[in-house]
Amino acid sequence: MTITTVGLDADDTLWHNETVFRLTQDRFYDLLSPHGDRPVLEARLAEVERRNLALYGYGVKGFTLSMIETAVEIMGGEAPAAVVREILAAGREMLTHPVEPLPGVEAALAELSTRYRLVLITKGDLWHQEQKLAASGLGELFAAIEIVSEKDAATYQRAFSRHGTGAGEAAMCGNSMRSDILPALEAGAWAAHVPYPLVWAHEVAEAPQGHPRFAELASISEFPGWLAGLS
Amino acid sequence: MTITTVGLDADDTLWHNETVFRLTQDRFYDLLSPHGDRPVLEARLAEVERRNLALYGYGVKGFTLSMIETAVEIMGGEAPAAVVREILAAGREMLTHPVEPLPGVEAALAELSTRYRLVLITKGDLWHQEQKLAASGLGELFAAIEIVSEKDAATYQRAFSRHGTGAGEAAMCGNSMRSDILPALEAGAWAAHVPYPLVWAHEVAEAPQGHPRFAELASISEFPGWLAGLS
Repeated sequence: MTITTVGLDADDTLWHNETVFRLTQDRFYDLLSPHGDRPVLEARLAEVERRNLALYGYGVKGFTLSMIETAVEIMGGEAPAAVVREILAAGREMLTHPVEPLPGVEAALAELSTRYRLVLITKGDLWHQEQKLAASGLGELFAAIEIVSEKDAATYQRAFSRHGTGAGEAAMCGNSMRSDILPALEAGAWAAHVPYPLVWAHEVAEAPQGHPRFAELASISEFPGWLAGLS
Repeated sequence: MTITTVGLDADDTLWHNETVFRLTQDRFYDLLSPHGDRPVLEARLAEVERRNLALYGYGVKGFTLSMIETAVEIMGGEAPAAVVREILAAGREMLTHPVEPLPGVEAALAELSTRYRLVLITKGDLWHQEQKLAASGLGELFAAIEIVSEKDAATYQRAFSRHGTGAGEAAMCGNSMRSDILPALEAGAWAAHVPYPLVWAHEVAEAPQGHPRFAELASISEFPGWLAGLS
């Protein structure tokens, strides 16, 4: 068993992301609290986001547009400019939010990069993901960056062929069962799930049961050891 | 002289883009006409866009956010929800605007694809560019797609090495002197400029004078013949 190439997810695997979205959502619900109870606001925003996902894709800009659309729907005829301005500011702050590697990430990547070709494989907004990678200080550890619109088995096959020796000699590590683990396994790669405390509802999926190429790890710090144990 | 690989820009090279932006801007100026004369509105929107470019990058979602921000700034305290709703609708219409290949594009690409590896090299929003390519019906003619955050010499070197035999055996075709032509020439590739009637101010640059690897063409229909004449 030879592993030559390691894929890593970015958001909520290398740095916080969902937390930033949740904090912004909280701010949005506070802002609109005179116009509706929180469960109502949550349901309205979720509905607008769901409706817009195929059009906007993933990322902060589409999320900001969905917050504005929800606010305008909820407030009816007159939307105080202050509310719209506040939502725009919240979106901008998400885009400039400091990017700090999660605990154990720097050490794990430094160790992995001496033994494998590291490929960052992430969904989302091209511009923002590149900014976050630059801000994280982790960019130099990666041999390649793949920012993709969806993560399916073909995505992993292509990425591991292009930047490595194929999915059969590759392993993926990420927090999303649905986007990082299941399609990487389907592509023929190994896959280690490192959960993040919060999961976007869109990314929830069942863990594979008894899969020979799958591991559930408590932290990314366990990932290099797991990989070493495969050979 | 061997050319193995051909890079093509997308927006305003394969299909209309700037026209769609201009039509939306016209609609925006009409909408805000009670609040300011057109030159004033133009200057305000341009200023907001310029300010946001480093944060939002290229694309419709950032442009929509900048229109909303400009409207809220101009209208002061009370932004009628109808105006914000109208701008959101205009942004959505840009994202679902029909994508039709420009005259001559299908024939030129069909001919090129029998002789060269075709690589689409475009800036902009990952999600939307993939949607436009799918809607254009041109996707199958390309051996590879590179959606990038900026187009500089390193971008072209990387793209032509990854998907071809290096920039020295590659040619680029596009409408932007600044993004398609000058950096491709700098990378060592050949480059043919096919102008589009409208140019975004951000993309304006001088044509190279007497450069041995550069051509100014009136239409993409002339591009296959120019390439054939190189060898």
